[in-house]
Amino acid sequence: MNRIHTDREPSETNRLEAFSDGVFAVAITLLAFNLTVPRLANGAPVTNLGQALFDQWPVYLTYIVSFLTILVMWINHHALFKMIRRTDHTFLLLNGGLLLLVTAVPFATALLSTYLLQPDSKIAQGIYAMLQLVLAIFYNSMLLYATRHRRLLKADIEDQSVGTYIRQYAFGPLLDILALGLDIFSAQASLGVCILMVLFFSLPPSLTMRRRPEG
Amino acid sequence: MNRIHTDREPSETNRLEAFSDGVFAVAITLLAFNLTVPRLANGAPVTNLGQALFDQWPVYLTYIVSFLTILVMWINHHALFKMIRRTDHTFLLLNGGLLLLVTAVPFATALLSTYLLQPDSKIAQGIYAMLQLVLAIFYNSMLLYATRHRRLLKADIEDQSVGTYIRQYAFGPLLDILALGLDIFSAQASLGVCILMVLFFSLPPSLTMRRRPEG
Amino acid sequence: MNRIHTDREPSETNRLEAFSDGVFAVAITLLAFNLTVPRLANGAPVTNLGQALFDQWPVYLTYIVSFLTILVMWINHHALFKMIRRTDHTFLLLNGGLLLLVTAVPFATALLSTYLLQPDSKIAQGIYAMLQLVLAIFYNSMLLYATRHRRLLKADIEDQSVGTYIRQYAFGPLLDILALGLDIFSAQASLGVCILMVLFFSLPPSLTMRRRPEG
Amino acid sequence: MNRIHTDREPSETNRLEAFSDGVFAVAITLLAFNLTVPRLANGAPVTNLGQALFDQWPVYLTYIVSFLTILVMWINHHALFKMIRRTDHTFLLLNGGLLLLVTAVPFATALLSTYLLQPDSKIAQGIYAMLQLVLAIFYNSMLLYATRHRRLLKADIEDQSVGTYIRQYAFGPLLDILALGLDIFSAQASLGVCILMVLFFSLPPSLTMRRRPEG
Repeated sequence: MNRIHTDREPSETNRLEAFSDGVFAVAITLLAFNLTVPRLANGAPVTNLGQALFDQWPVYLTYIVSFLTILVMWINHHALFKMIRRTDHTFLLLNGGLLLLVTAVPFATALLSTYLLQPDSKIAQGIYAMLQLVLAIFYNSMLLYATRHRRLLKADIEDQSVGTYIRQYAFGPLLDILALGLDIFSAQASLGVCILMVLFFSLPPSLTMRRRPEG
Repeated sequence: MNRIHTDREPSETNRLEAFSDGVFAVAITLLAFNLTVPRLANGAPVTNLGQALFDQWPVYLTYIVSFLTILVMWINHHALFKMIRRTDHTFLLLNGGLLLLVTAVPFATALLSTYLLQPDSKIAQGIYAMLQLVLAIFYNSMLLYATRHRRLLKADIEDQSVGTYIRQYAFGPLLDILALGLDIFSAQASLGVCILMVLFFSLPPSLTMRRRPEG
Repeated sequence: MNRIHTDREPSETNRLEAFSDGVFAVAITLLAFNLTVPRLANGAPVTNLGQALFDQWPVYLTYIVSFLTILVMWINHHALFKMIRRTDHTFLLLNGGLLLLVTAVPFATALLSTYLLQPDSKIAQGIYAMLQLVLAIFYNSMLLYATRHRRLLKADIEDQSVGTYIRQYAFGPLLDILALGLDIFSAQASLGVCILMVLFFSLPPSLTMRRRPEG
Repeated sequence: MNRIHTDREPSETNRLEAFSDGVFAVAITLLAFNLTVPRLANGAPVTNLGQALFDQWPVYLTYIVSFLTILVMWINHHALFKMIRRTDHTFLLLNGGLLLLVTAVPFATALLSTYLLQPDSKIAQGIYAMLQLVLAIFYNSMLLYATRHRRLLKADIEDQSVGTYIRQYAFGPLLDILALGLDIFSAQASLGVCILMVLFFSLPPSLTMRRRPEG
């Protein structure tokens, strides 16, 4: 009976991961819908394609930033689920909230790319930075909820690693608040902080947990 | 031979779950397509972005309600599949019908958000509530079909738990009929009931089954 | 070593199934994009929503027919993969061709729903029926390729069951040719045959293989 | 403990494969969005559907070429992941870059199909060929990174097979550079090379690795 129990445990979170992976995968791919073929107002091809493609550089920039943002969020989600052995209803809801925010990223991205060079750029960038802040808050909530009193943790995860992991992610919301604050003065500066953040979180090896020697 | 049989059993429903998860994940993410960037009729940026974003509040409201609706439906789907060990053709068809309705949710949501503040709001909300009713009927049919004479149930699921579970879900269609009836008088009141329902079904721990002590 | 080999075998086709499931799930959900919110030419809400929704009945009809078509194709795909233990490059290509056709179903559906009541309905229905025919041919090719000399079959699948299975599916292309031929006289009659076919293939238990007593 | 370790190993890359499969599946299905129903500028049905469908042949041609391109990339991705036993952060990032490029394929395809018969066809085809080149470079980087000093390789993969495999893929970028160079003279010739390449890479059995006798 013990054997069957052991076999079943990994599948406890399997479908939640599969569903979440699906949402992440669809959301990250839908970002590309913001890349539109240049056309005249009447649908006809433009006469200077090179220029028209160049002029929509905010679309490419925000596409790459948002792609990396969702990718990093997926990597973090993946890292969190490697630490837990089961889910409960509250965790499902927190995860649902996180996914709701992830599916809103393509909208915020399209909004920002359309208004980045317009007078209302601060509103568009404010929504973009706010979404990142709420995403970070939800992720940290999931992390704290799962690890509190080792609620959902696997038996072989050490308390010390968990502590390091939590401290590492606590910076996220603070940087998002900084980006949001900068938006009062300049949408471009605020976006710059968002770009630096996503580069910072994607480049260094943040998945330190899985690198631990297993021997 | 017995061993191989045991190994194979869990995979009996695996691909159906994976396919269903895919449909749920795509449908829930496509809801975000209803969040559109405000533009003038000629495609140009609007001059007052804040106001334009505020004016499309029915879009955000219905987005969140429909997201939670699909999420709760997925959680229920997940809970049902944890109880069953195999599928048959009738169950595949019932599941297909459920998925057909799930993929129609983004359409009903877009319809409702467009017409919520229009004279024809009752028609839009009537279709929205009707879709929820038919979804609940299909879910209850799947539940009853799978549990009838323990047709598709796993061996370790107790009859008593199943009974509790079935009674718990029987309320769904009744509340949907209430919402549908209220729509005769007021689309807003009817939508209010839909909102209360989805909050009620998402907030309390409805997955009582998986919380049972395993020892 | 033998044990590991046994464990690994099921995973031989796993990723191909997961990828195919993804394509099926996205294609079946994208069908719903054809359900559009009625608006005036300038994007404003219509004044008689009930009538406008009723007028687009070809959209609902073709939506349901195409949903069932993709669902039945997925059920068949699922049944086929339950019989095979491995894939090879030719099988991957045949499967790729099948998926290419599946992703074209939403286009053919939108075409048919737009032109069903127009003078050019025969062209639209001709493309729809032709797509179904080529889908059936690809499915039968996969089936014949996989079972020929038991090329990709699992060891425990009996030759007799395979023969029954192959004969059962041989009717598909013939009925599609009938639908295509009828389109010369009437698009509506041709669509009627397509509807009868998909109802016929979804309603009876076609997955006879998995119903065999395992004892 | 050793047993559990063995059981866990395959799942090390599982979620990355599932997420990647999701992105590949969504991107390949979204290609079909480029297949649009012919309508007049005011949204009304066209009067000569057959001609209108025929006139958009660049859409069908690029659809099939891009479908095969993503399919071949998925087959290669699949083949690579069969060789590796674990991932690390750098590999996750390389894979993320590959997925970013895959999600951009529908855009490049729509661009090419719109401008193939326009004066600016060289720009559209140049972007198309460039995307293929960068995709090939990312794939080769993943391959080299994973196999370097057997960094991420499974224990039972022979060095000799890896060498053959790497040499086989080294041609890809070279042919893409050829296609890109040809685009200086003719967009059609350049596209022709892209078509020949994707046919060449899909038709022959390139997955030689998995055909090795296991005995």
